[in-house]
Amino acid sequence: MVGATGAVGQEFLRLFVERDFPVASLKLLASERSVGKTYLFKGEDIAVEEATPEAFEGVDVAFFSAGASRSRALAPAAVAAGALVVDNSSAFRMDPAVPLVVPEVNGCAMTPESRIVAVPNCTAIILLVAVNPLQKLGKLDRLIVSTYQSASGGGAAMMRLLEEETRKVICGEEPDPSHLGTRYAFNLFSHNTPINEDGYNEEEVKVIAESRKILGLPNLKLNVTCVRVPILRAHSESVTVEFEGPAPSVEAVREALSVAPGVRVIDDRAGNRFPTPLDASGQGDVLVGRIRQDLSNPHAISMFITGDQLLKGAALNAVQIAELALGVRR
Amino acid sequence: MVGATGAVGQEFLRLFVERDFPVASLKLLASERSVGKTYLFKGEDIAVEEATPEAFEGVDVAFFSAGASRSRALAPAAVAAGALVVDNSSAFRMDPAVPLVVPEVNGCAMTPESRIVAVPNCTAIILLVAVNPLQKLGKLDRLIVSTYQSASGGGAAMMRLLEEETRKVICGEEPDPSHLGTRYAFNLFSHNTPINEDGYNEEEVKVIAESRKILGLPNLKLNVTCVRVPILRAHSESVTVEFEGPAPSVEAVREALSVAPGVRVIDDRAGNRFPTPLDASGQGDVLVGRIRQDLSNPHAISMFITGDQLLKGAALNAVQIAELALGVRR
Repeated sequence: MVGATGAVGQEFLRLFVERDFPVASLKLLASERSVGKTYLFKGEDIAVEEATPEAFEGVDVAFFSAGASRSRALAPAAVAAGALVVDNSSAFRMDPAVPLVVPEVNGCAMTPESRIVAVPNCTAIILLVAVNPLQKLGKLDRLIVSTYQSASGGGAAMMRLLEEETRKVICGEEPDPSHLGTRYAFNLFSHNTPINEDGYNEEEVKVIAESRKILGLPNLKLNVTCVRVPILRAHSESVTVEFEGPAPSVEAVREALSVAPGVRVIDDRAGNRFPTPLDASGQGDVLVGRIRQDLSNPHAISMFITGDQLLKGAALNAVQIAELALGVRR
Repeated sequence: MVGATGAVGQEFLRLFVERDFPVASLKLLASERSVGKTYLFKGEDIAVEEATPEAFEGVDVAFFSAGASRSRALAPAAVAAGALVVDNSSAFRMDPAVPLVVPEVNGCAMTPESRIVAVPNCTAIILLVAVNPLQKLGKLDRLIVSTYQSASGGGAAMMRLLEEETRKVICGEEPDPSHLGTRYAFNLFSHNTPINEDGYNEEEVKVIAESRKILGLPNLKLNVTCVRVPILRAHSESVTVEFEGPAPSVEAVREALSVAPGVRVIDDRAGNRFPTPLDASGQGDVLVGRIRQDLSNPHAISMFITGDQLLKGAALNAVQIAELALGVRR
């Protein structure tokens, strides 16, 4: 595990135990400043070692979750040492030679020859787990998505920042807004990644490009707006799906989602109970509700989805990829 | 003022002073249990009186902000007493005989004969202040809106609930989720109003019907998803505007919004500065940013807007209606 000390890294350790992932021995790698920290795993204290090219000797599966530049620098060494690299960063996602995989959607994009497999952007994973099952009901034409993204997407540091800022506001103090350029507590803001010349931020560009690659629909139209909200660890998305032909019925959508892997439908109109990010936190499934016809377009349906950003949006999807590669049955 | 003790009522008092609204004398009316409370207005303590039909004798303008049933019960008495009723509730909004007014958009819907003028739903007001200026650039075909609505839309009680729940979570306690059916602190949820047979909640139905009435476009298509987020007093909206013909350029949209009344453009792509609800809090203007072409539809543009729910979404819009009726120049 490269990036063992991060928010996603910690989820891996829990998942290995919870899913009985076949770990014969575990190496925790991180940057030099974390060397010496220890983590308890199956009753054993494991010390963090420095992530160097030599550290991958004897490794079968290398999970990378330490940012794109670390992946670019070290993944080749891991591959050379014979490891399968499962990479959570954006480094290789759009490389045509690298499968970009959400196991429920396109597990077959991996082959026994795949040496690097990329884990998609968290917002794209959560979106596609819920949208892919609708492909059997009609041909997708356009997705319109507005997101409600959690602090965890910015790592453990952003989660702490949200909690610390909130504590200050509750105590009547004004937090220093210089970290994000704006206050986060009781506030929301357009996703804090650079904007391209079309006016789209990097997160939106990733969701558009990666969704097309994963679904194998290079011409799929996507309208995406990414917004960070003061929520800790689950991303939510307001999604309208436009089909080429007339939209399927709400009943057909609900049925298709009910049997879809990795999806749980919470759609209680009478009780006004629909998915919330708190419901999704700590859960592996993507939750879907508010399933309804789009009254403004007879070819479209709308829904509201939410999924744990650290689990299905990152660590869980990575572990599922490794399970698929290793032929581990669940 | 009927509903003087509520979150919106308190904004009225501030606005009367701030805008030098011509108040010769002020009556604060509320339910029986608030009788005897006093509020300071221009150096004078004003005692709250019970809102009864007799209370409107001698009143020129009656602002109602105490819910639809109170408006239905008492507005006729206010009209009979000769008052102009400016009603913040949903009671009369869809009555064909009652103008539903956002002064920047359709002030001319009022006539000297209007005795009741309705203030639209807060989400609709904020949406239309930003969308209306685009009508000079092309014919509107469809609006796609996902909202990020604040606690203030649920009144002072919901604002307190959010603060109290957040304080508990920060202190490691688990708040009682029974008030809203779900926890609010560090969470978000589909708008908590009843759902109709099409799967739309009351808030969404209001935004759709009221937008059509205000714009005078009974066939305008609207796709609306209303979501409550843990923000105190400003509503945000992710908006895609589809035109009948090709979309105007980003420059044309920015220019039209820059000169539009009640709008402030904050659209700094290089600095990644766009409107946040905290920027909008306490401000009269609707803030607009993230103006861009919709890459999935050559007829559409997208933008992100935010406005103070208690001010432009309620009290300010009501005061502006009264100013228009009274011929007060600003």
